[in-house]
Amino acid sequence: MKIVLTGAGGFIGHALQKALSGDHEMVGIDRQLNGAAGIEGDLCDRATLDTAFANGCDAVIHLATVPGGAAEADPDLARRVNLDATMALIETAGRTANRPRFIFASSIAVFGNPLPPRVDDATVVAPMMLYGAHKALMETWIETQTRRGAISGLSLRFPGVIARPKGPSGMKSAFMSDVFHALRAAAPIELPVSPDATMWLMSVSQMVANLVQALETSATGTITLPALRVSMRELVEVIAQATKADPALASYAPDPALEAGFGRMPPLATPAADALGFSHDGNLDALVEAALATLS
Amino acid sequence: MKIVLTGAGGFIGHALQKALSGDHEMVGIDRQLNGAAGIEGDLCDRATLDTAFANGCDAVIHLATVPGGAAEADPDLARRVNLDATMALIETAGRTANRPRFIFASSIAVFGNPLPPRVDDATVVAPMMLYGAHKALMETWIETQTRRGAISGLSLRFPGVIARPKGPSGMKSAFMSDVFHALRAAAPIELPVSPDATMWLMSVSQMVANLVQALETSATGTITLPALRVSMRELVEVIAQATKADPALASYAPDPALEAGFGRMPPLATPAADALGFSHDGNLDALVEAALATLS
Repeated sequence: MKIVLTGAGGFIGHALQKALSGDHEMVGIDRQLNGAAGIEGDLCDRATLDTAFANGCDAVIHLATVPGGAAEADPDLARRVNLDATMALIETAGRTANRPRFIFASSIAVFGNPLPPRVDDATVVAPMMLYGAHKALMETWIETQTRRGAISGLSLRFPGVIARPKGPSGMKSAFMSDVFHALRAAAPIELPVSPDATMWLMSVSQMVANLVQALETSATGTITLPALRVSMRELVEVIAQATKADPALASYAPDPALEAGFGRMPPLATPAADALGFSHDGNLDALVEAALATLS
Repeated sequence: MKIVLTGAGGFIGHALQKALSGDHEMVGIDRQLNGAAGIEGDLCDRATLDTAFANGCDAVIHLATVPGGAAEADPDLARRVNLDATMALIETAGRTANRPRFIFASSIAVFGNPLPPRVDDATVVAPMMLYGAHKALMETWIETQTRRGAISGLSLRFPGVIARPKGPSGMKSAFMSDVFHALRAAAPIELPVSPDATMWLMSVSQMVANLVQALETSATGTITLPALRVSMRELVEVIAQATKADPALASYAPDPALEAGFGRMPPLATPAADALGFSHDGNLDALVEAALATLS
């Protein structure tokens, strides 16, 4: 298959391109490819899209985005990337190929906060961040374009994916990855949530497996991916054990907004995703092991 | 109240501006105001918005749109008006006023086709036309901006509003109004649906009453307006009776796409709207009488 992958130079995109490039012809796109093969250019630039689709395509995986914190800081940029460029990508894919597969990285941010006591496939979207609203809009747009026969679209709502590289990501949830870096380096870290904060998490290798699964299934529509629900206390303990670090290196200074936005994830049921073969890491030990493996 | 009204030169906008201008300071906007007071300009033009909001506002009623058929014919224009200009309008309103009331003309087109056996407040949106998708996206956006405190938004899903003036409206549903013009003039008309086609209808005067109600309630979110469900055969009979025309002037040459898109409306329940004081015309005789009154 010929696969156009946006965000190819990013955290998930880099791992995905590596996983797929043995069996498929990959056309990566990113402003900075960070060594990945592909087209270095701005997704908002018409010429970038025309080049990427010059020889058609069988599938598109759209990971590029302006995430939560960065979107709040620059709403115009976020709209251009998360809405305008995404719609242009869908339009170009549908025009240059025959009903291509289109996998869209949506987000649990569509649910907003506060969340209901339990989230499942019937939970109605109610975004609070611009980022979550952008994702919700594009889910509806992709469903419509699929109904119209332009693409075969599947939107996957991503949980927190760990462990991201150090450095600014524009993501308010960066602390979920930073705790891995700190404990691995036996360095102290002040976490902006309480020990009881609960999060929905998935390792990047598990995320890559789910994206490959998304290419292979013919399911369309929008689904919430499964995720492990873990507390920050449990996460610190298991990372400390795996890295032989002192769990007391982690201290807690909860930020009310971050606690509300990222630390109050209720029980999650994802029967639609489960039935299609999507899965989380299985248990916390496996999640931490997989996340640490990415860092080495 | 100071009220900014988009689409002020249009069919519903004109009637609404007339109804509100006694009690309120109206700032109408339209490319062609057709004699209404206000600002003649393009909603996509930043300067038009800046002029309209130069002295603040208490409420916005956003009727301007590129409707179904016109949107399919010019998707780029439709996106600019239905998405870009709508988002710019919301942004400008939220920035220049303190949580202004924002009433948005959405549409039953968000439900797409085929429809389920019954539509009620739990029916999930599944647009088929670009127009319906644009409306669904903006409903979610307005809900988000309301949740964020920028506006106090209420989206109303409009049924077919009759009787529009003769001439091109860009609406695929224009036949619902054309049948009034024809029978009133004792002229033959070929209808693009079957006699058994069922439609959801409301007179423009009832629609104006509902928009005034939307300004007066503080309810936010998205609601489907009530509507009378009538068959084309019934509608023709009652118009013929009221206009003393021969019902045989109407002939039927169903277009499968129009029949599927506009002639298969199932029973409709709108408890949320009913509880807020929104209503339809009551019965078919009243609907036809009100619609004919608009034409004279």
